[in-house]
Amino acid sequence: MSSANPTDWLEVEGKARRRILTHTPDMMVVEVEFSEGGWGPQHSHPHVQATYVRSGRFEFDVEGEKKQVGAGDSLIMPPNAKHGCTVLEAGTLIDVFSPAREDFLA
Amino acid sequence: MSSANPTDWLEVEGKARRRILTHTPDMMVVEVEFSEGGWGPQHSHPHVQATYVRSGRFEFDVEGEKKQVGAGDSLIMPPNAKHGCTVLEAGTLIDVFSPAREDFLA
Repeated sequence: MSSANPTDWLEVEGKARRRILTHTPDMMVVEVEFSEGGWGPQHSHPHVQATYVRSGRFEFDVEGEKKQVGAGDSLIMPPNAKHGCTVLEAGTLIDVFSPAREDFLA
Repeated sequence: MSSANPTDWLEVEGKARRRILTHTPDMMVVEVEFSEGGWGPQHSHPHVQATYVRSGRFEFDVEGEKKQVGAGDSLIMPPNAKHGCTVLEAGTLIDVFSPAREDFLA
């Protein structure tokens, strides 16, 4: 199994920071903490992504479709779908990618 | 995006119940609530699986390797790896599968 210790936190755009909780070539689990007023910039990648809302409240924009989510909600971003979010209340997302985001390991 | 309403809860072996939070063909997010004294029976499947511990405390056995995990921890079960768990403190797991568990939709 893969259940290594998390990596150090990395500050990222959008008043946020992330760390990798665990990963294998097939899958990667990433924790992203957003501060009040933060955002996740629109982007896309070939990996399929599930996002589970651990806490806080967010408005997602996935391919132009907007949806508000809160603690306990989840959503799936299809491969190559343009997506981003706006923070409505500070909180934490758990992002699961398949395969692993090798760009996060570089 | 996929962010449908959760399915109804389904009682499963091991003093547990599960519901599907959202799914696409590529990925599925499942919430599993375990009561005190519960367990996840040893099994395997070709899907890669990430498990995020929302609450509680669990001992996992993955291919004979044992590991205790608590809230905020995560682990990845490789495709076809035999895995199961014992509940140390009642709680909830968030399981993410790729591709979707079509057997859960039947």
